[in-house]
Amino acid sequence: MYKKLFIPGPTHVSDDVLQKMATPMIGHRTKEASNLQRSISDKLRKLMYTQNEILLSTSSGSGLMEGAIRSCTQKRAAVFSCGNFGNRWFAIAEDNNVPADKFEVEWGTANLPEQVDGVLSSGKYDLITITHNETSTGVMNPVEEIAQVVKKYPEVIFCIDAVSSLGGTKIEVDKLGIDICITSSQKCLGLPPGLSLCSISEKALEAARKVKFRGSYFDLLQLYEYIQKKDYQYPSTPSLSHMFALDYQLDKILKEGLDNRFERHRKMAEYVRNWAKDRFALFAQEKFTSHTVTCVKNTREIKVSDLNKALGERGYMISNGYGKLKEKTLRIAHMAELSLNDIKKLLANIDEILGL
Amino acid sequence: MYKKLFIPGPTHVSDDVLQKMATPMIGHRTKEASNLQRSISDKLRKLMYTQNEILLSTSSGSGLMEGAIRSCTQKRAAVFSCGNFGNRWFAIAEDNNVPADKFEVEWGTANLPEQVDGVLSSGKYDLITITHNETSTGVMNPVEEIAQVVKKYPEVIFCIDAVSSLGGTKIEVDKLGIDICITSSQKCLGLPPGLSLCSISEKALEAARKVKFRGSYFDLLQLYEYIQKKDYQYPSTPSLSHMFALDYQLDKILKEGLDNRFERHRKMAEYVRNWAKDRFALFAQEKFTSHTVTCVKNTREIKVSDLNKALGERGYMISNGYGKLKEKTLRIAHMAELSLNDIKKLLANIDEILGL
Repeated sequence: MYKKLFIPGPTHVSDDVLQKMATPMIGHRTKEASNLQRSISDKLRKLMYTQNEILLSTSSGSGLMEGAIRSCTQKRAAVFSCGNFGNRWFAIAEDNNVPADKFEVEWGTANLPEQVDGVLSSGKYDLITITHNETSTGVMNPVEEIAQVVKKYPEVIFCIDAVSSLGGTKIEVDKLGIDICITSSQKCLGLPPGLSLCSISEKALEAARKVKFRGSYFDLLQLYEYIQKKDYQYPSTPSLSHMFALDYQLDKILKEGLDNRFERHRKMAEYVRNWAKDRFALFAQEKFTSHTVTCVKNTREIKVSDLNKALGERGYMISNGYGKLKEKTLRIAHMAELSLNDIKKLLANIDEILGL
Repeated sequence: MYKKLFIPGPTHVSDDVLQKMATPMIGHRTKEASNLQRSISDKLRKLMYTQNEILLSTSSGSGLMEGAIRSCTQKRAAVFSCGNFGNRWFAIAEDNNVPADKFEVEWGTANLPEQVDGVLSSGKYDLITITHNETSTGVMNPVEEIAQVVKKYPEVIFCIDAVSSLGGTKIEVDKLGIDICITSSQKCLGLPPGLSLCSISEKALEAARKVKFRGSYFDLLQLYEYIQKKDYQYPSTPSLSHMFALDYQLDKILKEGLDNRFERHRKMAEYVRNWAKDRFALFAQEKFTSHTVTCVKNTREIKVSDLNKALGERGYMISNGYGKLKEKTLRIAHMAELSLNDIKKLLANIDEILGL
């Protein structure tokens, strides 16, 4: 039996979008492939509120996180972390011998503008990374306030992991001055995993031009230059199936209306949060709770894996806590094509199973 | 109108396999995902004639080529090239600051065992790369003879790009002592692009343990260790759609019978070769012609792009020459699920269009 996924990726994918994954193949060196890529990029620019170029990558979002920090760090990167995915970005830097320092706050709290300001004022860093939405803790960092601070340091490349937020909440890339904004297919975009994408600014490209060894597959400058030269085709064969599905899904997203979409996410988040506060407690500080996933503190000391098993028999799936938070938290994602009604049904089932 | 693809990837994908790409999502941290990965690996070991571990990568084959040369070169890599994809492997090494030398032969000819022996006898290299099947020239390198030579140098890691051959011709990985054998989904495996995979030997893993900065996403050692520790799950979210389709397609491949499958490819290749010799000429030296793609020398100076346009109107697509061979050659792939009958129909159409 198929379980409806309320996990923070892969998310539930609509049947019509799944069917687009079964589109017959075309050559990737054809006008058709160029047009497909161009169409996707145009629509993504709307979703991201940017004029910047869009790069697609046949990989998970982690691949583009590697690409960003390796391609564009000349001096030293400041990696801000409030959970697992911030820590991953730092590990990626270390794996690539990219000079970097990690600034981690207690899990459940956010990276704050003052912290960013303090770090950048040292003058040591020319690139910073922020996890916009940390799925391990349910924290959504205050990216707009952070952006105001980053603007004080025009030499710094501003990179955002928006993997689990873009498409579920408004991120105005150009207004915020985000140089590289990364997301992947299997979260708020409502597609299967396997494709990631980012916007990239002229400033980030300029920085990359000064970095000598940027690697190959995730060299953002090489990708950028290739698509300019080769009419929006890619150096190696991309996942055309995901591109067909993404192009279709972006039409659906734009048809829903971005503001409507973000409002739907906000309402789902609010509903889950109220439920969580009533039955359990929030893991994240309330003012930094995410619009796309709620991390619930397991104050009742229920067995989360047993709950998920019982939910599975009813056709639902949520997430246990991440890593060290396993069994200490449970996570409910409310992203992509899920509706408030889906959320109500899920929570009613949890209540019934737990006798709440 | 869908065009049947006779290009060297993406190849034609059967409807039932395409439908598997539309399988609803599952969590990638579930027993189901572990079992899927395990099932794929077991079947791939049969196809590759190996006991080695299998690594999947959500990327094109170029990604794993980067992973192999970056993860496992301690001293210096010898990159053998007989066309574009050999050159690409060298460029990838350079992009990563991996010490490497390129040994390129004239396009249309093969890398020979004597050449490999000469290079390795210098003692300078601890890793070599060979493009098994060079789609830019239609050359299939004599990998069995090369393997005999490589065995004289037990310290050398033997890497094969079998992207456009594995699944179309027999490659006995363990017998040949191949340490890393790489392929991707969109060639002889008959799947859409977006997934690549390799086998990896203990010796290659041992070498990787001594390399300090192997990167992250394509660090083969990190991938290997993660799947051992985490019950065959991946560090980041893999393309589950491709995994569903691959698992299904591998059943079909094993059901056809490997020898039958290779013989079908051999027969298609023979038929196209005879046709090419009769109407045009072969670009590759005949004894090194590929079983999966034929590169035809455009001795009649036809306009290949016009031919392809006319074929397109009839529902077929072939490839123009690659890079500098554009319009000087045309390429006809005969791989994956194509049949001798498909080939006959295609060639009859070409004859008709060209009035041959």
